[in-house]
Amino acid sequence: MIHGFATTPQPPYYAVIFTSQRTDGDHGYEAMATTMFELAQRQPGCLGAESARGPDGLGITVSYFADEASIRAWKQEARHLVAQRLGKERWYSHYEMRVAKVERAYCGPEGR
Amino acid sequence: MIHGFATTPQPPYYAVIFTSQRTDGDHGYEAMATTMFELAQRQPGCLGAESARGPDGLGITVSYFADEASIRAWKQEARHLVAQRLGKERWYSHYEMRVAKVERAYCGPEGR
Repeated sequence: MIHGFATTPQPPYYAVIFTSQRTDGDHGYEAMATTMFELAQRQPGCLGAESARGPDGLGITVSYFADEASIRAWKQEARHLVAQRLGKERWYSHYEMRVAKVERAYCGPEGR
Repeated sequence: MIHGFATTPQPPYYAVIFTSQRTDGDHGYEAMATTMFELAQRQPGCLGAESARGPDGLGITVSYFADEASIRAWKQEARHLVAQRLGKERWYSHYEMRVAKVERAYCGPEGR
């Protein structure tokens, strides 16, 4: 595994693309984000995750899952439900969630 | 449109997820990244793009396209080919590219 990258299998698998704009101030966000990032990756069917947030507060987290059932199970996980509620109430001024089926993938620059 | 977010139509459409780790130093990267981000969004079939890069140099750019043909055309665009070559030679120590079909999407926190 290369630091920061998810080690995903051959497609097909699923990607949950979460783009979000943070509100000002922490309000417990950083601690919860770290916890959720690690918790997600321990969920059955989770293949890994990647995350980046720029200085303007816009962030993208992509989590990879084996199938739709694993995505649904993670959405309903108890601690994740708490985080989702706080996200709506405190942490995000806007977000977009997109669920997509990965059809092909490649990496670089080595080995192309 | 909300700043930083792509205004995408109802699914289905495609997402090209590009996760990359920058090398040290600029080497012309920032100027080219800005140019390519704008150029991509003027391509036929491009529905928008979102991008974030953290202080550790890990970045995620997601570009949205109407169909596979638009993705292939963008991959072959002349100025983009130059940028891809420089990306491999100079700018990225590693990257992962995944092409995925967006099946469902929603936004928040307003209007849920």
